This record gives sequence, C-alpha cells and structure tokens, in this order.
Amino acid sequence: MMHILTLDTSTEQCSCALLCGTDIQARSEWAPRRHAELLLPMAEALLAEAGLTPRQLDAVAFGRGPGSFTGLRIACGVAQGVALAADIPALPISSLAALAQAAVQEFDGEQVLAALDARMAEVYWGRFTRNAQGIVEVQDEEHLSLPEAVDLAAFSSSQWLAVGTAWAAYPALAKRVQQASGQVPVLRYSQAEALLPLATTALQQGLGVTAAQALPVYLRNQVTHRI
Amino acid sequence: MMHILTLDTSTEQCSCALLCGTDIQARSEWAPRRHAELLLPMAEALLAEAGLTPRQLDAVAFGRGPGSFTGLRIACGVAQGVALAADIPALPISSLAALAQAAVQEFDGEQVLAALDARMAEVYWGRFTRNAQGIVEVQDEEHLSLPEAVDLAAFSSSQWLAVGTAWAAYPALAKRVQQASGQVPVLRYSQAEALLPLATTALQQGLGVTAAQALPVYLRNQVTHRI
Repeated sequence: MMHILTLDTSTEQCSCALLCGTDIQARSEWAPRRHAELLLPMAEALLAEAGLTPRQLDAVAFGRGPGSFTGLRIACGVAQGVALAADIPALPISSLAALAQAAVQEFDGEQVLAALDARMAEVYWGRFTRNAQGIVEVQDEEHLSLPEAVDLAAFSSSQWLAVGTAWAAYPALAKRVQQASGQVPVLRYSQAEALLPLATTALQQGLGVTAAQALPVYLRNQVTHRI
Repeated sequence: MMHILTLDTSTEQCSCALLCGTDIQARSEWAPRRHAELLLPMAEALLAEAGLTPRQLDAVAFGRGPGSFTGLRIACGVAQGVALAADIPALPISSLAALAQAAVQEFDGEQVLAALDARMAEVYWGRFTRNAQGIVEVQDEEHLSLPEAVDLAAFSSSQWLAVGTAWAAYPALAKRVQQASGQVPVLRYSQAEALLPLATTALQQGLGVTAAQALPVYLRNQVTHRI
C-alpha cells in the first residue's frame, strides 16, 4: 500500500494531499501570503487523521514550479526537511503538469495547454498530452514568454483544453484561446491532489530524488542567468 | 549531550551549524538566490560528518527573521519539515538577536544595536543587552523604520556595538552611528552558528514549538496588515 504526501504552494492556493493506498485526503485554501503558516498544519492534520507518521511515507512530492518564487520555496523547503528527516525520496513535480493532469481527469481531455500568470507581463506555459496510462506528459518543454508568444497553432483541433491562471491576468490571451479552440479557458490553481497521479508514476519509475536534489524550477531565474 | 541543528537564510548568507555536546561544526556561503539549493546539502553534510540522523537531534533552530522574505521561508520550511518528520521541537530565533549574540562574543561587548537592510528605504533593527549568562536579550522590541528613525540616543555610552548590513545600504546611518558611538559599525550577516547559544538557552527554557508553530517573523508584513 503506497503512502505519498504532496504539497503545493506554487500559486495563491496552499494545498496538501495524502495518498494511503487507494484513499486520498486533501486540504486546500486560497491564501496568498499565508502559505508558510498554513501548509504545515494541513500536512500534520492529514497525517494524524490517517494515523501515519512521516517515516511511514514512501515519498514526499511537491509542486516544483514554475510559479510564485516565494511560494515555491515553502513547499520545497518543507519537502526537503521531511525527506531528510524521514529518510524518504522527494518527488519534484511540475506545477504546469499538475494543472494539466487535473484538467484531463476533470474534463476527460487528451491535450492541454496549462498556463500560469508569471507576473512582469509574462506567462509560464506548457502543452501536455495524456498517455495510455492516463498520465500527462509535456510535449516539448515548459516556457516563459509574453502572452502573445503562447503558441496556439495546435488549437485548430478542438480536443484541446486550456487551464491555469494566465487567462485571468491576460484577457487578450483568453480571447485568443477562445478563438483558436472555440472554448473558454478554465481558471484553475495548481493543487496538491493533482500531483498524486504524477507522483505515484514518478516514484514507480524510480524518479525519486534525495532531499538535497529536491529543488524548485523557476524558469525565469534560468533565463535571467543565461542572459 | 545536546544535539541542535541551526539554519539561517535571512540574509544573502546561507548557513547551517550543528552542535554535538560541546563540538560545533558550521558551513556558510554568501550566495544570494541559491539558498534553496545550498541549505539542504550543508545540513546533510554536517549530520553525516557527525554520524547523526535528524531523529537524534534534540531540536532544529532557524533564523525566523526579520530579513529577506524569500530567504526566511527556505530555512523555515526546512526546519518545519525536519521538526515534523523527526518529531522534535523547532526553535524560531531572531536574526537580529543572532547578529547581536555573535557581536558580544566576538567583541566582548555588553550592548548591541543590530540592524539589517530591509530594502524599500527601511531598516530592521533592535537593541540588545548581554545578560549574566552571556546571552543577549532584546531591550524593548524589534523595529522596522526609516534609517533616520533608528534610535541612537543610548549611543552616548561608548559600550555600544553596532552590527548588521544596514550600514552598507545606508551610509548616512553609518555616519550617525559613528558620530554617536565613536566607532565604525561592523558589517555582518546573520549566521547559523550564532543561533546556537540562543537556541540552546531557548530549548532549556522550554521554548521549543511544534513544526506548525515554527513561523517566520517579517515585521513588514505585520505592519502592512495593521494598516
């Protein structure tokens, strides 16, 4: 029976989920600036209700970004600390993949554009495809760009879903998506519960890392460093 | 024999220290923006060299701020995770007190003004006095103010030391301190090693908290919320 704790603070939503075999329990709160204060009590409560100690976990997963810089570091720090002290692997999971995973499950879609508001007039985005096991995979790579540069060429097919927070911040992008796909993009925040299918698959594939290797992915930082 | 791990990421300096009885080992690196990547390997290395597991620790302490918002959350997150998973108390220690503690030990002083650059043209500061046990105590409370509002009235006595990063950012404050005390203020970053005497005392006084209660103190956030 697999036990995985997942944490996500990559958007304004602070969330935590626990898989115990086939049972999933989750907590979530929309709480900008209160993640450091809310995440730990959520995790503690889920573990206590399941009668589990952190050492009984098989892994701890976290939304590794892209997303809010300060937010990412909270879930990452807690995951690092739990992985170190419980001596279990950590699983850094893409926040965009988590959005896409939740979307294919909720809307029974095959292909998803996941896009998050990256502030500074930019957008984090990625295109994902559902595989035969029902798990999303990124098509090329995750991007950071101006909203105008989000590539909607594939949207001529109506099989596409669009999920995330970017539409709320950039109405022109919402309009472009609607024109390309004929559908209204769906406003969704990254959620710890959506990390679970991805985390389970990653653990089975041996993709767990040590606490020290459990790092956020900022996208923007990397770009800045390249220039 | 007491075992305490301390973490500090409240300034550009990323640092970690481990107390094993009377032995202290510490790591430190000046690394703005790389704290999430450096802190965990430092903690892992110190524990491995001491042959300790996190569960053998009596407590985990961290610089709780004030300081860099994103920085604080890394040490806090890791401390929360370690405290949760190792089932040990956490000790949130003031970054200003840690600066003051290091100063009284290094310069054999009695009274210290500790001040950190708070950006946005402001300064975090506090006045500390060494007690009979050699441990610093805050005189009134910790402040966030314009550099001009840092109260130097007590500096007529030459027993005062001034330490921190505020002088580098605000030369006019450095000049005022020098005029008031006759001494050049000392540039110092908060260090995990300086948390140890404060953490040991706090643990002995029963001031350990649960992982969920181990929170950063921003000062600025609190002020914002009050308005």
